[in-house]
Amino acid sequence: MTQEFSAWMGGIQARMETALGRQLPPQGALPARLHDAMRYAVLGGGKRVRPLLVFAAGEVADAPEASLEVVAGAIEMIHAYSLVHDDLPCMDNDDLRRGRPTVHKEFDYATALLAGDALQAQATLILSDRHVAPDAAAQLEMLRVLAQASGSRGMCGGQQIDLDAVGKPLTEPELELMHIHKTGALIRASVTLGTLCGTPLSPQESAKLDHYAKCVGLLFQVVDDILDVTQDSATLGKTAGKDAKDDKPTYVSILGLAEARRKAQTLLEDALAALEPFGTRARCLRELAEFITSRSF
Amino acid sequence: MTQEFSAWMGGIQARMETALGRQLPPQGALPARLHDAMRYAVLGGGKRVRPLLVFAAGEVADAPEASLEVVAGAIEMIHAYSLVHDDLPCMDNDDLRRGRPTVHKEFDYATALLAGDALQAQATLILSDRHVAPDAAAQLEMLRVLAQASGSRGMCGGQQIDLDAVGKPLTEPELELMHIHKTGALIRASVTLGTLCGTPLSPQESAKLDHYAKCVGLLFQVVDDILDVTQDSATLGKTAGKDAKDDKPTYVSILGLAEARRKAQTLLEDALAALEPFGTRARCLRELAEFITSRSF
Repeated sequence: MTQEFSAWMGGIQARMETALGRQLPPQGALPARLHDAMRYAVLGGGKRVRPLLVFAAGEVADAPEASLEVVAGAIEMIHAYSLVHDDLPCMDNDDLRRGRPTVHKEFDYATALLAGDALQAQATLILSDRHVAPDAAAQLEMLRVLAQASGSRGMCGGQQIDLDAVGKPLTEPELELMHIHKTGALIRASVTLGTLCGTPLSPQESAKLDHYAKCVGLLFQVVDDILDVTQDSATLGKTAGKDAKDDKPTYVSILGLAEARRKAQTLLEDALAALEPFGTRARCLRELAEFITSRSF
Repeated sequence: MTQEFSAWMGGIQARMETALGRQLPPQGALPARLHDAMRYAVLGGGKRVRPLLVFAAGEVADAPEASLEVVAGAIEMIHAYSLVHDDLPCMDNDDLRRGRPTVHKEFDYATALLAGDALQAQATLILSDRHVAPDAAAQLEMLRVLAQASGSRGMCGGQQIDLDAVGKPLTEPELELMHIHKTGALIRASVTLGTLCGTPLSPQESAKLDHYAKCVGLLFQVVDDILDVTQDSATLGKTAGKDAKDDKPTYVSILGLAEARRKAQTLLEDALAALEPFGTRARCLRELAEFITSRSF
């Protein structure tokens, strides 16, 4: 990781912490318990991978940072709500997230459910409330892409495929289908929405970036599966070894650790190849993919 | 209820059943279990009060029915998701809804959670995907109004106030604050979005209609509280007497049955007065308020 990239990443992460704090209902606003839970779920950490992708993609389209901040905030709220619901006892039943008690542990089950629901609405609210696209039609397109990516044929659909798969032997293509939905859809949306904030790209350019995003989405998951077996809970900030314990299929359980690492390397090469036409405009996208991969080695 | 109004109401209800069937992901689309649960939650009954309000408000603004159908579908999906989550064991823990097992009873807890989440996304999807407003800016405004009405300062906020109130003695103003959020916000949004589909109204006209919607929102709740003590589960299609059993404050528990009925009558008169400037254009809105009130006598 170059020093320049490290500074860029740290800058976005700090900027998003402030931005999200403003994009969420303020502390103390009634109903206070709900708003506390929403803020607890979103603020205070997280790697902010999706916002980083939004900003990196925005560079390619020369997008204004003020717009990227709103789009990144909306996507991060969708991501945060999915974690809150995913951690609930009826889903993954997880007590630890980002090194802290999960929302239902810190508050209660019903409040966590409502906080997740309200975060999804808040994402739509900020994305419809501010001018973040060159025109209203492009902004509607952003809302459409985000809803598609987070709904039953995107993230929620992936979670259902995940539920249906517990205890079943999956093939690698089936596992891939799950992840393309569960985490891949929102990662692709991050890149798409980042570029929609700026100068319109050609269909060929959009297709290249979308291919990059698909590769990075899978890459991210392969790395996550590797980290789940190679790192401890303290380092991860969430319960390590949980997938194996829950008998969930992962890239490591299907491919083995060495082959999973090779797959990560191949996905990285594929992602970088898709960025070639963009030259230096894709610098951050390039370094981001390399950074995600480096976590697993 | 006039025969004409009854035919209008039946027509909208039948039309919405078909429309919602098309607006939801088709049966059998993968992941099938999630889509089955979403369709189960939305289709096969319900009074469709919010769609009726959308269509009735649309008449005032001379709105095209094709647009009203989409807007009504989006709002009904938000309403349906809120019922699915509200019925979950961690919330109201209800087994019966619209005379059938609730979604988590028919499917399972995790699937019900995801179906609710995905319905919220589906509402945003259909409202951003089709042209339903005179221009893209008005359509963004629709999304903003709906997100505001369903989020932490609308419906979800009302549910949190409801949670916080269990077992506590509430005053009538406190109860009203809860209902203005919990059910009132989405009912107001129904009227607003219905008019946004058509010829723009003057600010004075919009304010009058909004006052109507506020009154009808409360009226609806007062009537619901009355029905909860005067009707049995078979007639209601949900568990009767549940509020009293759960020690939840209601208009009947605070005011008594006779006073609650008087309150309903006053709210009806207030609602009708707000419609005066609209003449025959507000015919359906007028009859709808009367119909809602009549259920409690």
